[in-house]
Amino acid sequence: MSELRLPAPPRRHLLAIGDLTRDDLERVLETAAGMAAALGRDVKKLPTLRGRTVVNLFFEPSTRTLASFELAAKRLSADTMSLRSSGSSVDKGESLKDTALTLAAYDPDVIVVRHPAVGAAQLVAAVTDAHVVNAGDGTHQHPTQALLDLYAMREALGRLEGLHVAIVGDVAHSRVARSLLQALGLVGARTTLVAPPTLLPRSVEALGCATSTDVAAIADADVVYVLRMQRERMGVAYVPSLREYASRYGITPERLRPGQLVMHPGPLNRGVEIDARVADSPASLVAAQVRAGLAVRMAVLYDLLAVPPVAVGAEERVPEEALA
Amino acid sequence: MSELRLPAPPRRHLLAIGDLTRDDLERVLETAAGMAAALGRDVKKLPTLRGRTVVNLFFEPSTRTLASFELAAKRLSADTMSLRSSGSSVDKGESLKDTALTLAAYDPDVIVVRHPAVGAAQLVAAVTDAHVVNAGDGTHQHPTQALLDLYAMREALGRLEGLHVAIVGDVAHSRVARSLLQALGLVGARTTLVAPPTLLPRSVEALGCATSTDVAAIADADVVYVLRMQRERMGVAYVPSLREYASRYGITPERLRPGQLVMHPGPLNRGVEIDARVADSPASLVAAQVRAGLAVRMAVLYDLLAVPPVAVGAEERVPEEALA
Amino acid sequence: MSELRLPAPPRRHLLAIGDLTRDDLERVLETAAGMAAALGRDVKKLPTLRGRTVVNLFFEPSTRTLASFELAAKRLSADTMSLRSSGSSVDKGESLKDTALTLAAYDPDVIVVRHPAVGAAQLVAAVTDAHVVNAGDGTHQHPTQALLDLYAMREALGRLEGLHVAIVGDVAHSRVARSLLQALGLVGARTTLVAPPTLLPRSVEALGCATSTDVAAIADADVVYVLRMQRERMGVAYVPSLREYASRYGITPERLRPGQLVMHPGPLNRGVEIDARVADSPASLVAAQVRAGLAVRMAVLYDLLAVPPVAVGAEERVPEEALA
Repeated sequence: MSELRLPAPPRRHLLAIGDLTRDDLERVLETAAGMAAALGRDVKKLPTLRGRTVVNLFFEPSTRTLASFELAAKRLSADTMSLRSSGSSVDKGESLKDTALTLAAYDPDVIVVRHPAVGAAQLVAAVTDAHVVNAGDGTHQHPTQALLDLYAMREALGRLEGLHVAIVGDVAHSRVARSLLQALGLVGARTTLVAPPTLLPRSVEALGCATSTDVAAIADADVVYVLRMQRERMGVAYVPSLREYASRYGITPERLRPGQLVMHPGPLNRGVEIDARVADSPASLVAAQVRAGLAVRMAVLYDLLAVPPVAVGAEERVPEEALA
Repeated sequence: MSELRLPAPPRRHLLAIGDLTRDDLERVLETAAGMAAALGRDVKKLPTLRGRTVVNLFFEPSTRTLASFELAAKRLSADTMSLRSSGSSVDKGESLKDTALTLAAYDPDVIVVRHPAVGAAQLVAAVTDAHVVNAGDGTHQHPTQALLDLYAMREALGRLEGLHVAIVGDVAHSRVARSLLQALGLVGARTTLVAPPTLLPRSVEALGCATSTDVAAIADADVVYVLRMQRERMGVAYVPSLREYASRYGITPERLRPGQLVMHPGPLNRGVEIDARVADSPASLVAAQVRAGLAVRMAVLYDLLAVPPVAVGAEERVPEEALA
Repeated sequence: MSELRLPAPPRRHLLAIGDLTRDDLERVLETAAGMAAALGRDVKKLPTLRGRTVVNLFFEPSTRTLASFELAAKRLSADTMSLRSSGSSVDKGESLKDTALTLAAYDPDVIVVRHPAVGAAQLVAAVTDAHVVNAGDGTHQHPTQALLDLYAMREALGRLEGLHVAIVGDVAHSRVARSLLQALGLVGARTTLVAPPTLLPRSVEALGCATSTDVAAIADADVVYVLRMQRERMGVAYVPSLREYASRYGITPERLRPGQLVMHPGPLNRGVEIDARVADSPASLVAAQVRAGLAVRMAVLYDLLAVPPVAVGAEERVPEEALA
């Protein structure tokens, strides 16, 4: 008699916020809360992903995101391997596809990808059998950043639905803004985009949110989310100078009303898009965002590797000592 | 009464294929098969080398080889430390010898060396007490690549003895070709070298194998092994242009006969030495080679650290939970 | 009834030798001796810091120091994460302060910092809750180097008090010399500085030690400590040429008397400040210094994380399986 074989559950990725349902998003935030509680213990290591391998494939420089994923994987007892573009065959001109195929042959459980090209994570998902997490693909998406931002907001304000968030800065080129805008929409929050006309996305109407070129439009927001000003945007095409940008859009104590919270994905340009007095004030959630990044990325890794409860064989694939 | 002390077994290295007997080579391939079986389990980690330290000392960029050694060591529960030339004292002009002496003071069990100079791994073996693995020294040797190639060939074709392998490309400057040629000789396989006259080694007769400057010579081979075309070879001295090389020696579907298998050590120059339709076809063993690399490198590490069964004191030095 | 809560013991750092008492220094050397004994066992891993995280933040290239701290942490079973300036947000111009704040949000137990600016480690200590180890800050301090130097001296000579150490070379710009001079003073050793007048510190008298511009002044020393000659010091302002420096101050066999020991913090410029015949002779403690580096850095990590025996709650914070 042949053994009963049910189809394996579909492989899952985190490529873009648009792939998630509201339930998915809420589940990840709940799991992250459990991870944060575990991180508060004296010995911070969980055995959950022992024997699993997480590969970080970073084609762009990064302190926060790479560190966060590495540490998240290690805290869950996974083995990690990080490949950066500097010092690897990537410099020999190997294509992303071939690098991904190479890594795939090692059968990693998860590949975390950061790459300057839109669609890079999707390509890796297409050519490998790993679960893929998009850690930033060009100007397209950065979904774990949006998840950690929502986590930090809810932790600080107790809710997400009905919040009003002003996103200030270079929205047009920001994968952070793109992912956050979608995530806020998913949980029923309201968004206003504030930027010079040259840095607003072209099809503003399609985004379904308010826009303004006047920084005064932040007045009504519960949270002011400040984007990093890229130096390479300076010049006639976008913004005359950093000084000019700072004076018109920089978030200073004077531009905030009491009770407003300020967020920033880092790294900060103090004195440009954010005044140092704001960055270091109690209104700043910057440190909370970084902390949230660790818990949220642990939750994402856990969530991708866990099997939906209805699947046959779940007792084999769910790590036995999974987070209680 | 004084304790009986037999001499310690000689320290062993993997510096060149020429150091191996056929028995050594077969034993490593057998061990690799055991490792591959272990990798097929759900939890891929083996406790075999717990408490051992493997240092990777890479003075040339590498994705595949470094990743493969790092992961091999981690899957065997060894601690790993990887030093790349970028960002280390190597940049201050420290000699290889002093870097090796520095590392030696940490008493690593294995040092894996990649270096642009011929004889680099041998130097490290001479000045340290570690087991040394040559992961590529200039144009000289790359023995683990040859071992994994043989592993992949045997896995695909069921045997090695009597096989006919055509090696196509820049044989003159290739450590991969040099090691592979010796390894194929050791197991009783036959080799034909195919290259432009400028890229054949000078003392072709001494190699004891057939050579041809016409790509049609691959017709009789069971396996077509395609070497990477280095861009720095382009120019009057070697090959007029990549396009010219591709048209005369590139491996296309039209040049293969049904049943022939194609191998490449990576990274691929699609459209130069190998047509993308070949690289992505079922005839390609490229992914199998990378997979084999992990199992073979685990086997090499295990083999170097294991003590011959007759040695006194083996019960102390062989890890207790060694691979069953 | 409310629970009795005594204040937590003060967080401790290793920023400069000047912060240590003689007892502190002796305790670390004793602990290092215990670590060295543990490293002599077949399985070199200790469970002491399991579940702890050590972050290495290196803004300058380094082989020895980074490798030593990484391996020290791993041998104590801590998780490690190493950030180097190359390939990280540091390249985007993020300030040290913000990088430190980012890392702090991950709640590492220890941050090890190397940075070209004087005071960098102190800044990191000021803005984070981690224990901070200074692994070199500009020309200021490199305290673990001094500790390992003292360890290697005592191991070779059986004592520290009353020893006479000649430090030869670019004292003015050397954090190694600065830390070593203080450490030798703390344990009752005597120091003579030997250098060209341009490379002696300005306020020589305040240092409370003998100085000489003549290399013959090393004759009376038990240990000749040779500093690395930085190529960037070459030029009219400091030293005419490497050849000139070597001929006047290079330590050759002829300049040593029998029984004198020679030390060097590495990496060596053979043929410049140290003759290869000296570096490779039995008089050289260079390998012993590197070996000491591992044991001493394990001891420093252990010492920072251990709680003074009188503290309430020590049984919670001291790792249960701490070094016996």
